[in-house]
Amino acid sequence: MKENPYDNPVFFQKYSQMSRSVQGLEGAGEWHELQKLLPDFHGKRVLDLGCGYGWHCRYAWEQGADSVLGVDLSERMLQVAREKSAGTPIQYRRCAMEDLTLPQGSVDVVISSLAFHYVRDFAPLVERIRNWLAPGGAFVFSVEHPVFTAYGSQDWYYDQEGNILHFPVDNYYDEGVRDALFLGEHVTKYHRTLTTYLNTLLNQGFTLHHVVEPQPPEHMLDLPGMRNEMRRPMMLLVSASK
Amino acid sequence: MKENPYDNPVFFQKYSQMSRSVQGLEGAGEWHELQKLLPDFHGKRVLDLGCGYGWHCRYAWEQGADSVLGVDLSERMLQVAREKSAGTPIQYRRCAMEDLTLPQGSVDVVISSLAFHYVRDFAPLVERIRNWLAPGGAFVFSVEHPVFTAYGSQDWYYDQEGNILHFPVDNYYDEGVRDALFLGEHVTKYHRTLTTYLNTLLNQGFTLHHVVEPQPPEHMLDLPGMRNEMRRPMMLLVSASK
Repeated sequence: MKENPYDNPVFFQKYSQMSRSVQGLEGAGEWHELQKLLPDFHGKRVLDLGCGYGWHCRYAWEQGADSVLGVDLSERMLQVAREKSAGTPIQYRRCAMEDLTLPQGSVDVVISSLAFHYVRDFAPLVERIRNWLAPGGAFVFSVEHPVFTAYGSQDWYYDQEGNILHFPVDNYYDEGVRDALFLGEHVTKYHRTLTTYLNTLLNQGFTLHHVVEPQPPEHMLDLPGMRNEMRRPMMLLVSASK
Repeated sequence: MKENPYDNPVFFQKYSQMSRSVQGLEGAGEWHELQKLLPDFHGKRVLDLGCGYGWHCRYAWEQGADSVLGVDLSERMLQVAREKSAGTPIQYRRCAMEDLTLPQGSVDVVISSLAFHYVRDFAPLVERIRNWLAPGGAFVFSVEHPVFTAYGSQDWYYDQEGNILHFPVDNYYDEGVRDALFLGEHVTKYHRTLTTYLNTLLNQGFTLHHVVEPQPPEHMLDLPGMRNEMRRPMMLLVSASK
Protein backbone atom coordinates (compact mmCIF):
# COMPACT_ATOMS: atom_id res chain seq x y z
CA MET A 1 0.00 0.00 0.00
CA LYS A 2 1.22 3.49 -0.82
CA GLU A 3 1.18 5.66 2.30
CA ASN A 4 -1.06 8.70 2.22
CA PRO A 5 -1.98 10.02 5.66
CA TYR A 6 -2.92 13.38 4.17
CA ASP A 7 -6.30 12.22 2.93
CA ASN A 8 -7.29 11.39 6.50
CA PRO A 9 -9.51 14.45 7.25
CA VAL A 10 -8.45 14.74 10.90
CA PHE A 11 -4.75 14.52 10.06
CA PHE A 12 -5.13 16.91 7.15
CA GLN A 13 -6.89 19.44 9.33
CA LYS A 14 -4.07 19.35 11.90
CA TYR A 15 -1.39 19.46 9.22
CA SER A 16 -3.00 22.49 7.65
CA GLN A 17 -2.44 24.40 10.90
CA MET A 18 1.30 23.75 11.13
CA SER A 19 3.48 26.78 10.54
CA ARG A 20 4.93 25.17 7.39
CA SER A 21 1.39 24.90 6.04
CA VAL A 22 0.27 28.38 7.00
CA GLN A 23 3.46 30.32 6.29
CA GLY A 24 4.92 28.09 3.59
CA LEU A 25 8.65 27.77 3.09
CA GLU A 26 9.51 30.50 5.59
CA GLY A 27 7.57 28.60 8.23
CA ALA A 28 9.65 25.45 7.76
CA GLY A 29 12.62 25.19 10.11
CA GLU A 30 14.83 23.52 7.51
CA TRP A 31 14.07 25.83 4.58
CA HIS A 32 17.05 28.17 5.14
CA GLU A 33 19.34 25.14 4.71
CA LEU A 34 17.42 23.39 1.95
CA GLN A 35 17.34 26.58 -0.09
CA LYS A 36 21.16 26.66 -0.17
CA LEU A 37 21.27 23.18 -1.71
CA LEU A 38 18.86 23.95 -4.56
CA PRO A 39 20.31 24.46 -8.03
CA ASP A 40 19.73 27.41 -10.34
CA PHE A 41 16.20 26.72 -11.62
CA HIS A 42 16.44 29.05 -14.60
CA GLY A 43 15.21 27.30 -17.76
CA LYS A 44 15.03 23.94 -16.00
CA ARG A 45 12.41 21.19 -16.14
CA VAL A 46 11.56 20.50 -12.51
CA LEU A 47 9.87 17.52 -10.87
CA ASP A 48 8.70 17.64 -7.23
CA LEU A 49 7.97 14.22 -5.70
CA GLY A 50 5.46 14.45 -2.86
CA CYS A 51 4.76 18.09 -3.61
CA GLY A 52 2.06 18.62 -0.97
CA TYR A 53 0.78 22.18 -1.09
CA GLY A 54 3.20 22.92 -3.93
CA TRP A 55 5.38 25.43 -2.08
CA HIS A 56 8.57 24.14 -3.68
CA CYS A 57 6.92 23.96 -7.10
CA ARG A 58 6.00 27.62 -6.89
CA TYR A 59 9.46 28.52 -5.63
CA ALA A 60 11.02 26.75 -8.63
CA TRP A 61 8.63 28.56 -10.94
CA GLU A 62 9.40 31.95 -9.37
CA GLN A 63 13.10 31.21 -9.77
CA GLY A 64 12.71 30.85 -13.51
CA ALA A 65 12.01 27.15 -14.10
CA ASP A 66 10.87 26.32 -17.62
CA SER A 67 8.32 23.74 -16.48
CA VAL A 68 7.29 22.32 -13.13
CA LEU A 69 5.46 19.09 -12.38
CA GLY A 70 4.30 18.36 -8.83
CA VAL A 71 3.30 14.82 -7.95
CA ASP A 72 1.43 13.77 -4.85
CA LEU A 73 -0.89 10.98 -3.77
CA SER A 74 -3.16 13.21 -1.72
CA GLU A 75 -6.08 14.77 -3.54
CA ARG A 76 -6.60 17.20 -0.65
CA MET A 77 -3.03 18.45 -0.88
CA LEU A 78 -3.23 18.82 -4.65
CA GLN A 79 -6.46 20.77 -4.39
CA VAL A 80 -4.73 23.35 -2.20
CA ALA A 81 -1.65 23.29 -4.45
CA ARG A 82 -3.75 24.01 -7.54
CA GLU A 83 -5.58 26.89 -5.85
CA LYS A 84 -2.37 28.46 -4.63
CA SER A 85 -0.75 28.03 -8.04
CA ALA A 86 -3.58 29.58 -10.05
CA GLY A 87 -2.20 31.67 -12.91
CA THR A 88 1.00 29.64 -13.23
CA PRO A 89 1.64 26.82 -15.70
CA ILE A 90 2.70 24.47 -12.88
CA GLN A 91 1.21 21.04 -13.45
CA TYR A 92 0.05 18.77 -10.68
CA ARG A 93 -0.55 15.07 -11.03
CA ARG A 94 -2.16 12.73 -8.54
CA CYS A 95 0.04 9.69 -8.46
CA ALA A 96 2.16 7.67 -6.02
CA MET A 97 5.76 8.53 -6.81
CA GLU A 98 6.45 4.80 -6.96
CA ASP A 99 4.02 4.53 -9.90
CA LEU A 100 5.09 7.62 -11.82
CA THR A 101 6.33 7.12 -15.36
CA LEU A 102 8.18 9.82 -17.28
CA PRO A 103 10.34 9.75 -20.41
CA GLN A 104 14.04 9.11 -19.95
CA GLY A 105 16.11 12.28 -19.53
CA SER A 106 13.01 14.49 -19.45
CA VAL A 107 13.79 16.31 -16.18
CA ASP A 108 16.67 18.59 -15.11
CA VAL A 109 15.92 18.86 -11.40
CA VAL A 110 14.20 16.41 -9.05
CA ILE A 111 13.27 17.75 -5.63
CA SER A 112 11.45 16.04 -2.80
CA SER A 113 10.65 17.45 0.62
CA LEU A 114 9.95 15.11 3.55
CA ALA A 115 8.24 12.46 1.43
CA PHE A 116 10.65 9.55 0.92
CA HIS A 117 10.09 8.21 4.43
CA TYR A 118 6.60 7.27 3.24
CA VAL A 119 8.11 5.10 0.50
CA ARG A 120 8.89 1.47 1.25
CA ASP A 121 11.52 0.73 -1.39
CA PHE A 122 14.10 3.44 -1.89
CA ALA A 123 16.53 1.87 -4.37
CA PRO A 124 14.03 1.26 -7.21
CA LEU A 125 12.77 4.82 -6.82
CA VAL A 126 16.29 6.26 -7.03
CA GLU A 127 16.93 4.14 -10.10
CA ARG A 128 13.89 5.62 -11.80
CA ILE A 129 14.79 9.17 -10.74
CA ARG A 130 18.22 8.61 -12.27
CA ASN A 131 16.53 7.53 -15.48
CA TRP A 132 14.23 10.58 -15.59
CA LEU A 133 17.12 12.97 -15.02
CA ALA A 134 19.07 14.38 -17.93
CA PRO A 135 22.87 14.02 -17.68
CA GLY A 136 24.18 16.44 -15.05
CA GLY A 137 20.71 16.78 -13.58
CA ALA A 138 20.28 17.73 -9.93
CA PHE A 139 18.62 15.69 -7.20
CA VAL A 140 17.89 17.44 -3.90
CA PHE A 141 15.76 15.99 -1.13
CA SER A 142 14.96 16.11 2.56
CA VAL A 143 13.84 13.18 4.69
CA GLU A 144 13.28 12.51 8.32
CA HIS A 145 16.64 11.63 9.83
CA PRO A 146 17.39 7.97 10.56
CA VAL A 147 17.97 8.94 14.20
CA PHE A 148 14.43 10.31 14.24
CA THR A 149 12.80 7.31 12.53
CA ALA A 150 14.72 4.39 14.11
CA TYR A 151 12.85 3.94 17.38
CA GLY A 152 9.43 4.37 15.87
CA SER A 153 7.39 6.59 18.16
CA GLN A 154 9.33 9.73 17.16
CA ASP A 155 8.87 11.05 20.65
CA TRP A 156 11.31 12.03 23.38
CA TYR A 157 11.98 9.85 26.40
CA TYR A 158 10.57 11.53 29.52
CA ASP A 159 11.02 11.23 33.26
CA GLN A 160 8.06 10.68 35.58
CA GLU A 161 7.41 14.42 35.81
CA GLY A 162 7.15 14.65 32.05
CA ASN A 163 10.52 16.31 31.51
CA ILE A 164 12.49 15.33 28.44
CA LEU A 165 15.46 13.13 29.32
CA HIS A 166 16.82 12.39 25.84
CA PHE A 167 15.80 10.99 22.47
CA PRO A 168 15.72 7.19 22.17
CA VAL A 169 17.38 5.22 19.36
CA ASP A 170 16.74 1.51 18.87
CA ASN A 171 16.42 -1.10 16.09
CA TYR A 172 18.56 1.09 13.90
CA TYR A 173 19.54 -1.61 11.42
CA ASP A 174 16.03 -3.02 11.26
CA GLU A 175 14.79 -1.07 8.27
CA GLY A 176 11.12 -0.94 7.42
CA VAL A 177 7.73 0.00 8.78
CA ARG A 178 7.36 2.24 11.82
CA ASP A 179 4.15 3.29 13.51
CA ALA A 180 4.77 6.95 14.30
CA LEU A 181 2.57 9.35 16.19
CA PHE A 182 2.45 12.55 14.14
CA LEU A 183 0.06 15.35 15.12
CA GLY A 184 -1.64 12.86 17.41
CA GLU A 185 -2.48 10.45 14.58
CA HIS A 186 -0.90 7.09 13.81
CA VAL A 187 1.11 7.38 10.62
CA THR A 188 3.04 4.62 8.86
CA LYS A 189 6.57 5.65 7.95
CA TYR A 190 9.60 3.71 6.79
CA HIS A 191 12.89 3.81 8.62
CA ARG A 192 16.11 3.32 6.71
CA THR A 193 19.70 3.88 7.72
CA LEU A 194 21.94 6.70 6.66
CA THR A 195 24.00 4.07 4.83
CA THR A 196 20.97 3.17 2.72
CA TYR A 197 20.11 6.78 1.93
CA LEU A 198 23.62 7.76 0.87
CA ASN A 199 25.05 4.57 -0.59
CA THR A 200 21.95 3.98 -2.70
CA LEU A 201 22.76 7.25 -4.45
CA LEU A 202 26.51 6.60 -4.63
CA ASN A 203 26.05 3.03 -5.90
CA GLN A 204 23.83 4.30 -8.69
CA GLY A 205 26.46 6.76 -9.85
CA PHE A 206 25.18 9.97 -8.28
CA THR A 207 27.78 12.47 -7.10
CA LEU A 208 27.08 13.76 -3.58
CA HIS A 209 27.46 17.49 -3.07
CA HIS A 210 26.03 18.17 0.36
CA VAL A 211 24.74 16.21 3.34
CA VAL A 212 23.19 18.48 5.94
CA GLU A 213 21.40 17.93 9.23
CA PRO A 214 19.67 21.29 9.53
CA GLN A 215 19.54 23.16 12.80
CA PRO A 216 16.65 25.55 13.37
CA PRO A 217 17.52 29.14 12.51
CA GLU A 218 18.25 31.54 15.37
CA HIS A 219 15.05 33.53 14.90
CA MET A 220 12.89 30.39 15.32
CA LEU A 221 14.47 29.16 18.54
CA ASP A 222 11.83 30.80 20.68
CA LEU A 223 8.97 28.95 19.00
CA PRO A 224 7.47 26.22 21.24
CA GLY A 225 9.69 23.13 21.36
CA MET A 226 12.20 24.51 18.91
CA ARG A 227 15.15 24.61 21.31
CA ASN A 228 14.80 20.87 21.74
CA GLU A 229 15.57 20.52 18.04
CA MET A 230 19.20 21.21 19.00
CA ARG A 231 19.20 17.97 20.98
CA ARG A 232 18.76 15.47 18.14
CA PRO A 233 18.75 15.60 14.36
CA MET A 234 15.26 15.43 12.89
CA MET A 235 15.98 15.88 9.22
CA LEU A 236 18.57 15.00 6.64
CA LEU A 237 19.09 17.09 3.49
CA VAL A 238 20.99 15.71 0.53
CA SER A 239 22.05 17.25 -2.76
CA ALA A 240 23.51 15.19 -5.57
CA SER A 241 23.87 15.22 -9.32
CA LYS A 242 23.71 12.58 -12.02
CA MET B 1 45.86 19.07 24.78
CA LYS B 2 46.14 16.17 22.35
CA GLU B 3 44.17 13.18 23.61
CA ASN B 4 46.13 10.02 24.32
CA PRO B 5 44.36 7.62 26.69
CA TYR B 6 46.56 4.77 25.49
CA ASP B 7 49.53 5.79 27.60
CA ASN B 8 47.42 5.38 30.73
CA PRO B 9 48.73 1.97 31.91
CA VAL B 10 45.38 0.73 33.24
CA PHE B 11 43.55 1.70 30.07
CA PHE B 12 46.30 0.26 27.88
CA GLN B 13 46.20 -3.04 29.75
CA LYS B 14 42.44 -3.34 29.22
CA TYR B 15 42.67 -2.27 25.59
CA SER B 16 45.33 -4.89 24.94
CA GLN B 17 42.82 -7.59 25.91
CA MET B 18 40.09 -6.53 23.46
CA SER B 19 39.52 -8.91 20.58
CA ARG B 20 40.69 -6.26 18.10
CA SER B 21 43.98 -6.07 20.01
CA VAL B 22 44.48 -9.82 20.36
CA GLN B 23 43.20 -10.99 16.99
CA GLY B 24 43.91 -7.88 14.95
CA LEU B 25 41.77 -6.92 11.99
CA GLU B 26 39.75 -10.14 12.04
CA GLY B 27 38.80 -9.39 15.63
CA ALA B 28 37.33 -5.99 14.73
CA GLY B 29 33.60 -6.05 14.04
CA GLU B 30 33.84 -3.40 11.33
CA TRP B 31 36.85 -4.79 9.44
CA HIS B 32 34.81 -6.77 6.86
CA GLU B 33 33.20 -3.47 5.82
CA LEU B 34 36.26 -1.24 6.09
CA GLN B 35 38.27 -3.66 3.97
CA LYS B 36 35.83 -3.20 1.07
CA LEU B 37 36.42 0.56 1.10
CA LEU B 38 40.22 0.36 0.94
CA PRO B 39 41.90 1.10 -2.38
CA ASP B 40 44.41 -1.07 -4.22
CA PHE B 41 47.57 -0.51 -2.16
CA HIS B 42 49.96 -1.79 -4.82
CA GLY B 43 52.86 0.63 -5.27
CA LYS B 44 51.17 3.26 -3.09
CA ARG B 45 52.63 5.55 -0.42
CA VAL B 46 50.40 5.01 2.60
CA LEU B 47 49.88 7.10 5.73
CA ASP B 48 47.97 5.74 8.75
CA LEU B 49 46.84 8.41 11.22
CA GLY B 50 46.42 7.02 14.72
CA CYS B 51 47.93 3.68 13.70
CA GLY B 52 47.84 2.04 17.16
CA TYR B 53 49.28 -1.46 16.97
CA GLY B 54 49.90 -0.98 13.26
CA TRP B 55 47.43 -3.61 12.00
CA HIS B 56 46.35 -1.49 9.05
CA CYS B 57 49.94 -0.50 8.28
CA ARG B 58 50.91 -4.15 8.01
CA TYR B 59 47.83 -4.91 5.92
CA ALA B 60 48.77 -2.15 3.50
CA TRP B 61 52.31 -3.48 3.34
CA GLU B 62 51.12 -7.04 2.71
CA GLN B 63 48.88 -5.73 -0.05
CA GLY B 64 51.85 -4.32 -1.92
CA ALA B 65 52.23 -0.75 -0.66
CA ASP B 66 55.45 0.94 -1.69
CA SER B 67 55.94 2.69 1.65
CA VAL B 68 53.93 2.90 4.86
CA LEU B 69 54.11 5.48 7.62
CA GLY B 70 52.16 4.94 10.84
CA VAL B 71 51.66 7.89 13.15
CA ASP B 72 50.44 7.71 16.72
CA LEU B 73 50.77 9.70 19.91
CA SER B 74 51.06 6.67 22.19
CA GLU B 75 54.56 5.35 22.78
CA ARG B 76 53.12 2.12 24.20
CA MET B 77 51.11 1.49 21.05
CA LEU B 78 54.06 2.23 18.81
CA GLN B 79 56.28 -0.13 20.78
CA VAL B 80 53.88 -2.98 20.03
CA ALA B 81 53.52 -1.84 16.44
CA ARG B 82 57.28 -1.88 15.92
CA GLU B 83 57.64 -5.34 17.43
CA LYS B 84 54.86 -6.75 15.32
CA SER B 85 56.25 -5.10 12.19
CA ALA B 86 59.81 -6.34 12.62
CA GLY B 87 61.32 -7.28 9.27
CA THR B 88 59.17 -4.83 7.30
CA PRO B 89 60.18 -1.34 6.18
CA ILE B 90 57.06 0.16 7.78
CA GLN B 91 57.97 3.38 9.55
CA TYR B 92 56.37 4.54 12.75
CA ARG B 93 56.51 8.06 14.08
CA ARG B 94 55.40 9.31 17.47
CA CYS B 95 53.46 12.45 16.78
CA ALA B 96 49.99 13.91 17.28
CA MET B 97 48.33 13.81 13.89
CA GLU B 98 47.44 17.48 14.39
CA ASP B 99 51.18 18.29 14.50
CA LEU B 100 52.34 16.09 11.64
CA THR B 101 54.08 17.77 8.74
CA LEU B 102 54.66 16.06 5.41
CA PRO B 103 55.59 17.34 1.95
CA GLN B 104 52.72 18.33 -0.33
CA GLY B 105 51.49 15.49 -2.55
CA SER B 106 53.75 12.94 -0.86
CA VAL B 107 51.06 10.36 -0.02
CA ASP B 108 48.70 8.28 -2.19
CA VAL B 109 46.50 6.82 0.52
CA VAL B 110 45.53 8.19 3.93
CA ILE B 111 43.80 5.78 6.28
CA SER B 112 42.65 6.29 9.85
CA SER B 113 40.85 3.84 12.07
CA LEU B 114 38.81 5.07 15.05
CA ALA B 115 41.13 7.96 15.83
CA PHE B 116 39.52 11.19 14.60
CA HIS B 117 37.11 11.33 17.53
CA TYR B 118 40.16 12.12 19.68
CA VAL B 119 40.88 15.18 17.54
CA ARG B 120 39.31 18.48 18.51
CA ASP B 121 39.44 20.33 15.19
CA PHE B 122 38.50 18.27 12.17
CA ALA B 123 38.52 20.84 9.35
CA PRO B 124 42.18 21.92 9.68
CA LEU B 125 43.23 18.27 9.78
CA VAL B 126 41.27 17.46 6.62
CA GLU B 127 42.82 20.47 4.93
CA ARG B 128 46.29 19.16 5.72
CA ILE B 129 45.39 15.61 4.64
CA ARG B 130 44.21 17.06 1.36
CA ASN B 131 47.54 18.82 0.99
CA TRP B 132 49.57 15.66 1.72
CA LEU B 133 47.57 13.63 -0.79
CA ALA B 134 48.66 13.43 -4.41
CA PRO B 135 45.91 14.19 -6.97
CA GLY B 136 43.45 11.29 -7.09
CA GLY B 137 44.69 10.08 -3.71
CA ALA B 138 42.40 8.04 -1.48
CA PHE B 139 41.16 8.93 1.99
CA VAL B 140 39.45 6.18 4.00
CA PHE B 141 38.58 6.44 7.66
CA SER B 142 36.40 5.11 10.44
CA VAL B 143 35.15 7.07 13.42
CA GLU B 144 32.73 6.55 16.22
CA HIS B 145 29.28 7.37 14.90
CA PRO B 146 27.73 10.74 15.87
CA VAL B 147 24.80 8.81 17.35
CA PHE B 148 27.29 7.02 19.59
CA THR B 149 29.20 10.13 20.66
CA ALA B 150 26.37 12.69 21.05
CA TYR B 151 25.10 11.89 24.54
CA GLY B 152 28.53 11.47 26.05
CA SER B 153 28.49 8.39 28.26
CA GLN B 154 28.40 5.99 25.29
CA ASP B 155 26.27 3.64 27.33
CA TRP B 156 22.80 2.25 26.88
CA TYR B 157 19.83 3.50 28.86
CA TYR B 158 18.64 0.80 31.28
CA ASP B 159 15.52 0.03 33.26
CA GLN B 160 15.66 -0.53 37.02
CA GLU B 161 16.45 -4.22 36.55
CA GLY B 162 19.43 -3.37 34.40
CA ASN B 163 17.86 -4.32 31.07
CA ILE B 164 18.72 -2.23 28.05
CA LEU B 165 15.81 0.01 27.03
CA HIS B 166 17.40 1.92 24.15
CA PHE B 167 20.38 4.12 23.31
CA PRO B 168 20.12 7.78 24.32
CA VAL B 169 20.85 10.69 21.99
CA ASP B 170 21.12 14.25 23.25
CA ASN B 171 23.02 17.51 22.61
CA TYR B 172 23.55 16.38 19.04
CA TYR B 173 24.38 19.82 17.64
CA ASP B 174 26.60 20.71 20.57
CA GLU B 175 29.92 19.60 19.11
CA GLY B 176 32.97 19.23 21.28
CA VAL B 177 34.30 17.47 24.35
CA ARG B 178 32.59 14.39 25.77
CA ASP B 179 33.60 12.47 28.85
CA ALA B 180 33.11 8.85 27.78
CA LEU B 181 33.47 5.72 29.83
CA PHE B 182 35.52 3.29 27.73
CA LEU B 183 36.78 0.06 29.28
CA GLY B 184 35.84 1.49 32.66
CA GLU B 185 38.13 4.50 32.29
CA HIS B 186 37.21 8.12 31.65
CA VAL B 187 38.31 9.06 28.16
CA THR B 188 37.95 12.43 26.48
CA LYS B 189 36.46 12.22 23.00
CA TYR B 190 35.05 14.82 20.65
CA HIS B 191 31.55 14.62 19.28
CA ARG B 192 30.78 16.08 15.91
CA THR B 193 27.76 15.77 13.67
CA LEU B 194 27.48 13.73 10.53
CA THR B 195 27.11 17.04 8.70
CA THR B 196 30.54 18.10 9.94
CA TYR B 197 32.21 14.80 9.02
CA LEU B 198 30.82 14.68 5.50
CA ASN B 199 30.51 18.32 4.51
CA THR B 200 34.02 19.09 5.70
CA LEU B 201 35.25 16.63 3.08
CA LEU B 202 32.83 17.82 0.40
CA ASN B 203 33.57 21.49 1.02
CA GLN B 204 37.27 20.83 0.60
CA GLY B 205 36.76 19.21 -2.77
CA PHE B 206 36.87 15.54 -1.83
CA THR B 207 34.63 13.18 -3.78
CA LEU B 208 32.66 10.82 -1.55
CA HIS B 209 32.54 7.19 -2.63
CA HIS B 210 31.04 5.33 0.30
CA VAL B 211 29.41 6.13 3.62
CA VAL B 212 28.81 2.99 5.66
CA GLU B 213 27.47 2.29 9.12
CA PRO B 214 28.86 -1.22 9.60
CA GLN B 215 26.78 -3.99 11.12
CA PRO B 216 28.58 -6.81 12.89
CA PRO B 217 29.16 -9.83 10.66
CA GLU B 218 26.90 -12.85 11.12
CA HIS B 219 29.64 -15.01 12.64
CA MET B 220 30.29 -12.45 15.40
CA LEU B 221 26.68 -12.05 16.52
CA ASP B 222 27.07 -14.59 19.31
CA LEU B 223 29.93 -12.70 20.96
CA PRO B 224 28.87 -11.00 24.22
CA GLY B 225 26.89 -7.83 23.56
CA MET B 226 27.25 -8.06 19.80
CA ARG B 227 23.55 -8.49 19.04
CA ASN B 228 22.93 -5.13 20.67
CA GLU B 229 25.12 -3.60 17.98
CA MET B 230 22.13 -4.05 15.66
CA ARG B 231 20.20 -1.57 17.80
CA ARG B 232 22.26 1.57 17.17
CA PRO B 233 25.10 2.59 14.87
CA MET B 234 28.45 2.70 16.63
CA MET B 235 30.76 3.50 13.76
CA LEU B 236 30.86 5.43 10.56
CA LEU B 237 33.13 4.48 7.65
CA VAL B 238 33.88 6.93 4.88
CA SER B 239 35.83 6.59 1.66
CA ALA B 240 36.69 9.59 -0.50
CA SER B 241 39.23 10.70 -3.04
CA LYS B 242 40.98 13.98 -3.76
